Amino acid sequence: MSQPGPSAITRLIELMAKLPGLGPRSARRAVLTLVKRRERLLVPLAQAMADLAESVSLCSVCGNADVTDPCAICADPKRSKKAICVVQDVADLWALERAAVFAGQYHVLGGVLSPLDGVGPDDLGLPRLVARAHSEEVQEVILALGATVDGQTTAHYVAAELAEAGVRITTLAQGVPVGGELDFLDDGTILAALTARKDV
Amino acid sequence: MSQPGPSAITRLIELMAKLPGLGPRSARRAVLTLVKRRERLLVPLAQAMADLAESVSLCSVCGNADVTDPCAICADPKRSKKAICVVQDVADLWALERAAVFAGQYHVLGGVLSPLDGVGPDDLGLPRLVARAHSEEVQEVILALGATVDGQTTAHYVAAELAEAGVRITTLAQGVPVGGELDFLDDGTILAALTARKDV
Repeated sequence: MSQPGPSAITRLIELMAKLPGLGPRSARRAVLTLVKRRERLLVPLAQAMADLAESVSLCSVCGNADVTDPCAICADPKRSKKAICVVQDVADLWALERAAVFAGQYHVLGGVLSPLDGVGPDDLGLPRLVARAHSEEVQEVILALGATVDGQTTAHYVAAELAEAGVRITTLAQGVPVGGELDFLDDGTILAALTARKDV
Repeated sequence: MSQPGPSAITRLIELMAKLPGLGPRSARRAVLTLVKRRERLLVPLAQAMADLAESVSLCSVCGNADVTDPCAICADPKRSKKAICVVQDVADLWALERAAVFAGQYHVLGGVLSPLDGVGPDDLGLPRLVARAHSEEVQEVILALGATVDGQTTAHYVAAELAEAGVRITTLAQGVPVGGELDFLDDGTILAALTARKDV
């Protein structure tokens, strides 16, 4: 389905359709909104994208996306250097930061191990993580990876790589989500919650 | 839920979340994709938006969004001047152009009559449409408005306004959509299709 109209509009629709969550149809709707709200949305958005393109980069220490390198988290003297939290993606780092429950360092893998897709240990910056874990300050590495097959496989591999670093290696607890009803949980989660049951 | 991280990223997420079809969560995902694909997506997108912001405007004749005024459709000498197709929105005009079944002129209302929202005849450019319909060349006005209550109310109002213009006034046929199964149609559509039944 080709898009009629001038090339400036067509080109923007094509680019917007490449964003996750947007297809050709919703990209058309979004661009139409931009055309209608030129001063209040299109111009600021073009500027914000240009600003970001000029300033953003991935932190050479932890892999976080930021406008400084090292990133604000790595450079923050108030954050503890004792623990490194290993996450799959920058989005996971943001989720942890939103929850404001962890005040240590991060290591963003940028993916999970996937031999079929050609993603190996070097692509995930694992040698860099091992080197960081060997630093004297670091006492614990928390593997905050997804509870998927790929995530858990990667967690096992990372744990094995870190075995000689002399640090405590932990993973997130599995169980019933806060607010969750048993009736809606899958069998695997119920099994994990029951296996890891605690004394009251 | 506030967004941690540098202001350049936060600002882009806030702006992206204003687009139709994107919320805070999907805007974060989209921006993360942009950060990761800076050269191939973020930079071209910023440029495409800046280009569009600089060039696009609404056609003073028909209301279409284009980089020229009058728009390419109004200025096209090959298109018939005999019929004006009245649509609610630029998206509807694009839909008709994609179908490539109409080679006349358009009039984009930019909305439907809505006294509660303060949308009156002047906001829809109706005086302009009436003036165009009085032109000698125009023989037919096709009301291609949505089959909703608001759309049909607007269609009736527009038809009344055009009564003295001496043009044929038509609306789109209602009935079973091509490829549609009766089992999945609502009662209103079945009634409309039955009422407007034709001899084989």
